[in-house]
Amino acid sequence: MPTDADLLSRLTALGHALPPAAKPVAEFILWRREGNLVFLAGQICERNGVPYPTGVYGKDVDLAAARAGGLAIGLQLISTLRTALDGDLGRVRQVVMVRGFVTAAPGMGDYPKVINACSELFIALWGENGRHARTSIGVAQLPLDATVEIDAVFAVD
Amino acid sequence: MPTDADLLSRLTALGHALPPAAKPVAEFILWRREGNLVFLAGQICERNGVPYPTGVYGKDVDLAAARAGGLAIGLQLISTLRTALDGDLGRVRQVVMVRGFVTAAPGMGDYPKVINACSELFIALWGENGRHARTSIGVAQLPLDATVEIDAVFAVD
Amino acid sequence: MPTDADLLSRLTALGHALPPAAKPVAEFILWRREGNLVFLAGQICERNGVPYPTGVYGKDVDLAAARAGGLAIGLQLISTLRTALDGDLGRVRQVVMVRGFVTAAPGMGDYPKVINACSELFIALWGENGRHARTSIGVAQLPLDATVEIDAVFAVD
Repeated sequence: MPTDADLLSRLTALGHALPPAAKPVAEFILWRREGNLVFLAGQICERNGVPYPTGVYGKDVDLAAARAGGLAIGLQLISTLRTALDGDLGRVRQVVMVRGFVTAAPGMGDYPKVINACSELFIALWGENGRHARTSIGVAQLPLDATVEIDAVFAVD
Repeated sequence: MPTDADLLSRLTALGHALPPAAKPVAEFILWRREGNLVFLAGQICERNGVPYPTGVYGKDVDLAAARAGGLAIGLQLISTLRTALDGDLGRVRQVVMVRGFVTAAPGMGDYPKVINACSELFIALWGENGRHARTSIGVAQLPLDATVEIDAVFAVD
Repeated sequence: MPTDADLLSRLTALGHALPPAAKPVAEFILWRREGNLVFLAGQICERNGVPYPTGVYGKDVDLAAARAGGLAIGLQLISTLRTALDGDLGRVRQVVMVRGFVTAAPGMGDYPKVINACSELFIALWGENGRHARTSIGVAQLPLDATVEIDAVFAVD
């Protein structure tokens, strides 16, 4: 299994940097561990502390911008997970389940492509152990009018 | 850890009483335990056996009424959990994950405040152990036209 | 507990056959096991490899057609689970949690009946162990314009 240093190098090689852990917008915490499972709270994507992108995929937001949001959330989730693991991403065993939520315009049934941006990051980082079960839903509304929200369950040592 | 009697006293001090366990509106049961995790089925809020409030948050239902629904569901979930624990809420170790669903009108991206009413109850009751990961989604439709639905995962002894 | 052969016989007696395992429409896998839990990815219903039914329940799709979709997904989930268990459904301990998603027209708050078709199949197959916690949500959009999507968590040996 790759160490924390391996994984940070791999992120750098992919052109990414981990953001600081996000702050919840309401009365909850960002993760909870029970046994070998870490449950990560749903996160919306942010840029400089402001939700971005906002609006409806396929109406206000195109695929590239929505995917940028999906990728940013993936990085935020990894940053939160690293905090949950006392700074050691090397303790990740596998990605178990990802749930993606997209405010999608009628007819935009290809919105899972938005969540792919997050899934591809996990796979680039952890290979086969990064693959995961997933459900992606087109929703009516997300917090603060965000376009994308994602949560995840990881198995860890 | 607080005992069942402690927790019932705390509920009374907060001005709340546990409702009788709800009845499922369809072919499912209200909880399932596996290992140390209890999975609570999604519940809509009811008053005298009738869904309340109903309709869309921000259109038919204001924040105070929707929050009353979120609080009522929190109490229903605790009541169900107590049944799952053979009447002993003292066996709750921590709240792990909460999922909130609100039928929210366009632009009502503050709907997580509705779910806060449930989250605040769990925190008032269990303190730090009551804090939880959470995802809140604005949905198109809920069973029986309810405004709010919430499910949860608890860790128990 | 019933064996794999018992369960296949029971399916046949119910008039059903297991479909081949579905292929994911995006960057994810169909199941992930961690400890005694198997997390099944959300599946939409298909007929001959094409999503069916598609469109909105209560507008484009009636209850019978939507329920046929829910049943088909139930069979697909069982087929995937059997693969996850190396072909031995006899290792299923209990159905833990089911999440159902239906694109429902305004006012169609009876859409949990659609998900019942899946839940009834699990109960017909596993009896009391087939009963499960469940949350059913009316959503704005599903992948490829599908009417129904369902995911599930099973406990296994």
